[in-house]
Amino acid sequence: MHSLSSSTPAADGFAMPAEWSPQAQVWMAWPERPDNWRLDAVPAQHAFAHVANTIADHEDVTLGVSARHYARARALLVPRVRLVELTTDDAWLRDTGPSFVRDAHGEVRAVDWVFNAWGGHDGGLYAGWADDDLVAAKIADLERVVRYRAPLVLEGGAVHVDGEGTCLTTEQCLLNRNRNPMLDRAGIERHLRDYLGVSTVLWLGQGIFNDETDGHIDNLCCFLRPGVVALAWTDDDSDPQYPISSEAWQRLTAMRDAQGRALEVVKLPLPSRAIALSVDEAAEILPRAGTLARPAGLRLAASYVNFLIVNGAVILPAFGDPNDARAAAILAEQFPDRAIRQVPGREILYGGGNVHCITQQQPL
Amino acid sequence: MHSLSSSTPAADGFAMPAEWSPQAQVWMAWPERPDNWRLDAVPAQHAFAHVANTIADHEDVTLGVSARHYARARALLVPRVRLVELTTDDAWLRDTGPSFVRDAHGEVRAVDWVFNAWGGHDGGLYAGWADDDLVAAKIADLERVVRYRAPLVLEGGAVHVDGEGTCLTTEQCLLNRNRNPMLDRAGIERHLRDYLGVSTVLWLGQGIFNDETDGHIDNLCCFLRPGVVALAWTDDDSDPQYPISSEAWQRLTAMRDAQGRALEVVKLPLPSRAIALSVDEAAEILPRAGTLARPAGLRLAASYVNFLIVNGAVILPAFGDPNDARAAAILAEQFPDRAIRQVPGREILYGGGNVHCITQQQPL
Repeated sequence: MHSLSSSTPAADGFAMPAEWSPQAQVWMAWPERPDNWRLDAVPAQHAFAHVANTIADHEDVTLGVSARHYARARALLVPRVRLVELTTDDAWLRDTGPSFVRDAHGEVRAVDWVFNAWGGHDGGLYAGWADDDLVAAKIADLERVVRYRAPLVLEGGAVHVDGEGTCLTTEQCLLNRNRNPMLDRAGIERHLRDYLGVSTVLWLGQGIFNDETDGHIDNLCCFLRPGVVALAWTDDDSDPQYPISSEAWQRLTAMRDAQGRALEVVKLPLPSRAIALSVDEAAEILPRAGTLARPAGLRLAASYVNFLIVNGAVILPAFGDPNDARAAAILAEQFPDRAIRQVPGREILYGGGNVHCITQQQPL
Repeated sequence: MHSLSSSTPAADGFAMPAEWSPQAQVWMAWPERPDNWRLDAVPAQHAFAHVANTIADHEDVTLGVSARHYARARALLVPRVRLVELTTDDAWLRDTGPSFVRDAHGEVRAVDWVFNAWGGHDGGLYAGWADDDLVAAKIADLERVVRYRAPLVLEGGAVHVDGEGTCLTTEQCLLNRNRNPMLDRAGIERHLRDYLGVSTVLWLGQGIFNDETDGHIDNLCCFLRPGVVALAWTDDDSDPQYPISSEAWQRLTAMRDAQGRALEVVKLPLPSRAIALSVDEAAEILPRAGTLARPAGLRLAASYVNFLIVNGAVILPAFGDPNDARAAAILAEQFPDRAIRQVPGREILYGGGNVHCITQQQPL
């Protein structure tokens, strides 16, 4: 605990930089739960290692792992990935890690949100999240940065910022009764302003269809640069995602960001085919009381929006779908100065998220 | 694994600085073994916290702890002590941590010795030391420094250096058949030269009476500054330590260090009374097959030489003995620019060592 501040980032002159700002490193953790990941998480471990090793082509990575899995993780990771012991309940560093904020002098601090496993005893995804709730504090300590403990249940994947005063989020998640039932919209906006250093909160409605996070923004819509967002999209009006994306499009095109700009909306297609666990794959997951069951056939919340921007590259999930190439082409056009690095995302999706959900960038 | 070098420190221009060189931080770990520390290690934890918090008055400290003990450790440690998860078999960072070496440009690297729990299956202190043997690599990774894996079974407490080319050690430990039976004295010296960057190895014979480490130098004799050593001493010729210290004194006064200097020997008294576990205290330790038993009444290897030099201070164990004050006075005279900080050492002694054994300095 290098230092715990009782102030707020905004009061101290700190704000969360946009993801495209220069980064010091990316944080990840090792998937281990046999009740969430099939085959004792081994296929997911390979997928996570692929993500970490790909990011390490561009910048430093620190990956947290239990002592039990240390040797296997070390064997699968390139030397540039720093491996540290870090006990988690599961491996979603976007949601359990700190949101890093920075001030005008370049000092970086950590915002440590309250974590309740995406809903606590009212729809949370697993029982027991004490280790996850300590992750942000442990990371702040590892980096010897000042930490703010925000009095708000929030996961990092529930918000996106443009670094110029705007926060983007969803009502489905932030107004959900299983997060902060004592706070209304205005109360939540006040905390977002205080802890992210933003001035304007833009609200979408629902997240991606069947997204078990209660509709995190980072699977539906993200900033590409100031004034421009990517939105997960389908033209198939029989798809349950169609009304959700359409409604989001309508809201986005009517919005103004913190700088008064209208938003340009870039449509990113969904995978062309729904992705679900097969009967065999579902049977490879160990059932456990208190953990969300993963039945075969249930459509998973696959989305190309769940990419990560790193120094000089974009890390984009691929699903073995024809739209993998379309998504990559669209992002290549949007990020002319960055390499588009596609990584296998299917095994990560099986656990409930994707590249953005399992990573947390630390700004320079 | 930031990088594993297949060269040697000496070949790369690195050498281990003296302990009085400016330090970046001190590494420690949390005592947890109920089969080594009485009362589930709680009294020892308080003693270790006292040491860490005292050092933190002078410089940064990083302390490793298991996930299970994280919250308790955090509660007992001041904020300047960085707490990281680090799984160990026991808490002797001097012996399991890396020996840090530095080059002329100020780059710091880590030497990772092979660890076998002070003797492996031939007199080792506990069965199972795989986590301990990973400690140095994990620390090197945490600090993102280059690591050398030395092909030598060695504990950091078995050597002292003066930073000017001299290494001090004991035959009892380094020539013990339970460490490196395939190497003779010359072979061991070669490795010490290669990995510590020294040119001269000075050999004493036996360590402190009943020292379960097989006579580590750091409990018997240490450098105070170039050309000057402190030697654990008793004037009582009926004490079993008397012939050991006398023989060491004779060797030391006949030696020349790497710079050709004769050594000045400062005698540090032993505690005036032998220290042993009481029957009640011994019963508070959980017996376990494979772990060294700690019987009541056995004289423990108490020594004031087991102090640590840090930036601006000397951390010196106290035993509740009249000689606590004498030792402090002698060191105050020897270190006129450093505060002498006495800390309770009895509970640490009960586990088999003292302040120097549980700490590892990282040079600036």
